[in-house]
Amino acid sequence: MAGYESYVVVHNIAKRHNVGTLARSATAFGVTELILVGRRDFNAFGSHGSASHVRFRHFHSLIEARNYLKEEKECDICGVEIAEGAAQVNDHPFKGNTAFLLGNEGSGLSAKEYEICDFFVYIPQYGCGTASLNVTVAASIVLHHFGVWAGFSERVRDGSKFIVADKPVRQGRRNFCAGTEESIVEERKLRKESAENGFFDENGSETSSTDLLNGLFLDE
Amino acid sequence: MAGYESYVVVHNIAKRHNVGTLARSATAFGVTELILVGRRDFNAFGSHGSASHVRFRHFHSLIEARNYLKEEKECDICGVEIAEGAAQVNDHPFKGNTAFLLGNEGSGLSAKEYEICDFFVYIPQYGCGTASLNVTVAASIVLHHFGVWAGFSERVRDGSKFIVADKPVRQGRRNFCAGTEESIVEERKLRKESAENGFFDENGSETSSTDLLNGLFLDE
Repeated sequence: MAGYESYVVVHNIAKRHNVGTLARSATAFGVTELILVGRRDFNAFGSHGSASHVRFRHFHSLIEARNYLKEEKECDICGVEIAEGAAQVNDHPFKGNTAFLLGNEGSGLSAKEYEICDFFVYIPQYGCGTASLNVTVAASIVLHHFGVWAGFSERVRDGSKFIVADKPVRQGRRNFCAGTEESIVEERKLRKESAENGFFDENGSETSSTDLLNGLFLDE
Repeated sequence: MAGYESYVVVHNIAKRHNVGTLARSATAFGVTELILVGRRDFNAFGSHGSASHVRFRHFHSLIEARNYLKEEKECDICGVEIAEGAAQVNDHPFKGNTAFLLGNEGSGLSAKEYEICDFFVYIPQYGCGTASLNVTVAASIVLHHFGVWAGFSERVRDGSKFIVADKPVRQGRRNFCAGTEESIVEERKLRKESAENGFFDENGSETSSTDLLNGLFLDE
């Protein structure tokens, strides 16, 4: 048992409520970290409390996330996309630690995102209807296959239920991915620049947007 | 190629917006029919228009649905549940046409639902977080594996997109599963009885609830 690890990179998810359901699946499939790039607040609605179990990490840019994954975690970066040469995910084309990069719900992977991928997997579709799967559905299928391939040990069951660990004590604000010291310094700098440019971007006021999200937080 | 078929039975889904995302996955994975038992109205939000592609069928009771699937479609009925003797879905324990019965989001399969199942599959989970997957995520993983096992032919692609058929002309009201003549007669009878008992149940006034749902209908 080589002890492979999986990661999920969330760069450009348009609907932040998808992050909650994603956290639920990431937890179920033994993902080591869920990596948010860009915005660090998210809506944990749909996570059923599992957002407290999965580890989140935040980076300001895709390239920082890439460097962390490649250099510190020795991950292959796998784009989930119907790209040229993409392998069917059920063929398990994995080799070791793998970080999965998900395309935006609408437009798929951007050119920048393509560039940092080492390989691609896709989920075969049949029939003639919709052209895409819900982003959490796609991620879950991929993470499930990685777990099967990596031979993760199954969670212990009691009758027909998996046994769940106690909810860990919450570190920091809910629905908010805590940053490293350097990333917070960087963020303050960016915010200051925005303010000097005479506008507040939507990340500008941390507390107000986070409070709003906390208001929405419900265990479905 | 034996031409196996898959079906999805939705009996007791508490959140009707889940039916929309389910329709999207059912379409993507070549499901022959989505079978609604009980309520026949649903919220197609999340289906991305695919609710027009997948065939819906409605039954008033689980036993009617069972008889249709067993007698007319020669299906095995497969409960998606961590039951005694359940097989891992990735081991593909399928033998022919299969109807998948999904448990309610909260409580899983009921005793009645258990009874009509020929066998069970479950999705292995790892880690120590949440005890369940989102119902659409679970269904999608199972339908994906059935498609792989059955050797469904893949949808034709154009570059990185699957080619989608034209949206079929809509038959009947949106977000509403049309019934057979007998089921409509039966429904009228039940409604009349409800009215005579001095109350309107939540299905009582078809048009008002359906209009409400139509109001909510948006392609996400």
